[in-house]
Amino acid sequence: MNDIAAGAEKLYRYEKNRALFDRAVKVIPSGIPGHLGPVLSQFIPVEAFPFYSKRAKGSYFWDYDGNRFIDYMCAYGPNVLGYNDPVVEAAARSQMENGNCMPLPAAAQVELAEILVDTIDGADWAFFAKNGNDVTSLAVMTARAATGRSKLVLVKGGYHGVAPWTQAAGHAGLTPEDTVNNLFVTWNDFEELEKTFNEHQGEIACFMATPYHHPVFTTNELPADGYWQKVRKLCDEHGVVLAIDDVRCGFRLDLAGSSKFFGFEPDLACYCKALGNGYPISALVGRDALRGAVADVFYTGSYWSSAAPMAAAKATIEELKRLDGANMMLERGKKLTDGLVAAASHHGVRLKVSGMSSMFYMEILNDDSLWMMQDFTAACALRGVFFTSHHNHFTNCSLSEDDIAETISVAERAFDAVAQAHPDKVDN
Amino acid sequence: MNDIAAGAEKLYRYEKNRALFDRAVKVIPSGIPGHLGPVLSQFIPVEAFPFYSKRAKGSYFWDYDGNRFIDYMCAYGPNVLGYNDPVVEAAARSQMENGNCMPLPAAAQVELAEILVDTIDGADWAFFAKNGNDVTSLAVMTARAATGRSKLVLVKGGYHGVAPWTQAAGHAGLTPEDTVNNLFVTWNDFEELEKTFNEHQGEIACFMATPYHHPVFTTNELPADGYWQKVRKLCDEHGVVLAIDDVRCGFRLDLAGSSKFFGFEPDLACYCKALGNGYPISALVGRDALRGAVADVFYTGSYWSSAAPMAAAKATIEELKRLDGANMMLERGKKLTDGLVAAASHHGVRLKVSGMSSMFYMEILNDDSLWMMQDFTAACALRGVFFTSHHNHFTNCSLSEDDIAETISVAERAFDAVAQAHPDKVDN
Repeated sequence: MNDIAAGAEKLYRYEKNRALFDRAVKVIPSGIPGHLGPVLSQFIPVEAFPFYSKRAKGSYFWDYDGNRFIDYMCAYGPNVLGYNDPVVEAAARSQMENGNCMPLPAAAQVELAEILVDTIDGADWAFFAKNGNDVTSLAVMTARAATGRSKLVLVKGGYHGVAPWTQAAGHAGLTPEDTVNNLFVTWNDFEELEKTFNEHQGEIACFMATPYHHPVFTTNELPADGYWQKVRKLCDEHGVVLAIDDVRCGFRLDLAGSSKFFGFEPDLACYCKALGNGYPISALVGRDALRGAVADVFYTGSYWSSAAPMAAAKATIEELKRLDGANMMLERGKKLTDGLVAAASHHGVRLKVSGMSSMFYMEILNDDSLWMMQDFTAACALRGVFFTSHHNHFTNCSLSEDDIAETISVAERAFDAVAQAHPDKVDN
Repeated sequence: MNDIAAGAEKLYRYEKNRALFDRAVKVIPSGIPGHLGPVLSQFIPVEAFPFYSKRAKGSYFWDYDGNRFIDYMCAYGPNVLGYNDPVVEAAARSQMENGNCMPLPAAAQVELAEILVDTIDGADWAFFAKNGNDVTSLAVMTARAATGRSKLVLVKGGYHGVAPWTQAAGHAGLTPEDTVNNLFVTWNDFEELEKTFNEHQGEIACFMATPYHHPVFTTNELPADGYWQKVRKLCDEHGVVLAIDDVRCGFRLDLAGSSKFFGFEPDLACYCKALGNGYPISALVGRDALRGAVADVFYTGSYWSSAAPMAAAKATIEELKRLDGANMMLERGKKLTDGLVAAASHHGVRLKVSGMSSMFYMEILNDDSLWMMQDFTAACALRGVFFTSHHNHFTNCSLSEDDIAETISVAERAFDAVAQAHPDKVDN
């Protein structure tokens, strides 16, 4: 890490968080595994990374050293109304008083399915699970059951979970057979998609993609004009199931589905994250034509009918409707990112924002490497604003005007520190 | 269903439950999907199947018609202390007041890993996820990462989740490649296992099995004397990772692991169900030699670091220790099943109980088909006792002497009804 502690400011320190991590590495491989840990989040330099969260409320979390952060990761998506939202918590607790994980489902399962069918454009049915990965995998199996075909067409750099079929060939623990049915195309390249479909006539079960392209480490890209409409038509012509992975975008663009936002109708759509405001639930929704196929797939899990997450999801969707949540998150994201770009420019830094404003991705164009961006996220973390350097961010409905103003103020100081650390790279 | 409503008893009726199901089939494929639904649970005849659970407490659940059931399915395993256990609920709620799904893990993740490493024999580390399937799949990937080999040896009739690799070839939605690396052996047949290992020298990554054989639809079988000790030695000789699926048995035989109960030490063990008393959490634990391999596998999920299930799991394990829970469940299962066998004999029915008494499996030997067993479960359900006809059952620590006595009383009447419905099959 470069010297991003410039100036006389009092920066965050992490003694208690570090002590916890020292204990963790003894009993948990890599200390914090997965996407919340320093291995995958190391692009926030580790010296600035808080490691643990003791408490979260609204748009903030607090670590074990008492540091408060304005949070733009939203637990990587689930926080959509604000952490510990009182309406969602009350709904979940009320259900928990009756029962949560029981030998049979509760009425909340039926009610939530009715709400999803009513809310999401083109959804005729819903199936519930826990992980995003559970429903992206079910979508693929449903498409295969419906078509009797094996191959999948996926977008390079897309992300659909951690099951072996979703991972890049050669990753640790994979066999060659795990990914042998995957065909990859470039995002927004309709001609390549058409060529792939023609070359594999009668072999392709499913085209799965996110509603817009939000990869890590690179610019996020919206669909080109007419792209999805052409894709929809092509899938119909080839009898290919069109499955949308709305795990990350879902409810942050349009409550009726991100496909509605972009003006097309998929056959299957996958939801998770925002669905329960943090309560563990995912859903596959689909069209009537696939009702029989999804029912034919053997698919179940110990906690998939648990009632508290269903009650939480019902409340989350009702609150998002009441607040016009998607537009609220888009508007606040726009205000925030406009302010961040302006703050950067004050210090000779060209900040590029891509993707939708409720899920904005940031790059610093002065620097081909990630160094300046990493230093920026470190400088922000040490001053109470939680960004990452290589993943899209998230806004939530509890983010206030004051939070945005404070974030921009922190960013001004962070960009100043970054500019001082990289004098050869900043614009004059 | 045969006439199992014989006599002057007032039997349960299900009007409100049926009305819910009528709504469900419109918006959920098959109405109730998965292992809690009538498709997989249809072996309780559908006329007697309550479909929904409104409330659960201790060893009981109540449906939407106000019927109370003494429950021997325990939500298919998760209920180990009793539904809505006050100690577990208090621990989970206290954590939820602070935060649950946050951008970073809470201290509860570290503390739970420390407890598991301290409690489970041979566990040097722990990794947390949501589904049992998440950790059985991770075990397989870890074994492949460690050995550089692809093939798995599995037991015919075993169950390790719903990912394609765990399913029988030909199931809806599978490709031929999904199961191409699976080799199957017969439970307890060491010679066949040894032959398989010899025929596939240097190709086998992992042998995965449950600690004892608890398939559906057939007699459950304990390991033969010396079986596991010979398997452990064979795995060592061939460099094969020995992974135990303790998802169903875990904490119901021995808190130190079902492998401890049977006197051997696996390389990896998978936990879920009982771990959080219904809160959604699963864990893979393993030996130091595999710490690097598991850390190399890319594996993460939106809710896997959520803190409330970790707080619940800590409390569950502490309560199980305080109560000597495994022995309590074994003893109560023994008392119950002895009483059921005696009740059956009073009516000329030969009830066979297999498996461990905390996870007992029941068959009626008078009948080669499942009809008498199905009628027995139906007769019990309509009188307030919830069994299934084709899956092992579960006891839990809140099951009282009175519950057992009431269950045996219901069973006496149910066997009487079954005997009257099958006069040609009962013994004289």
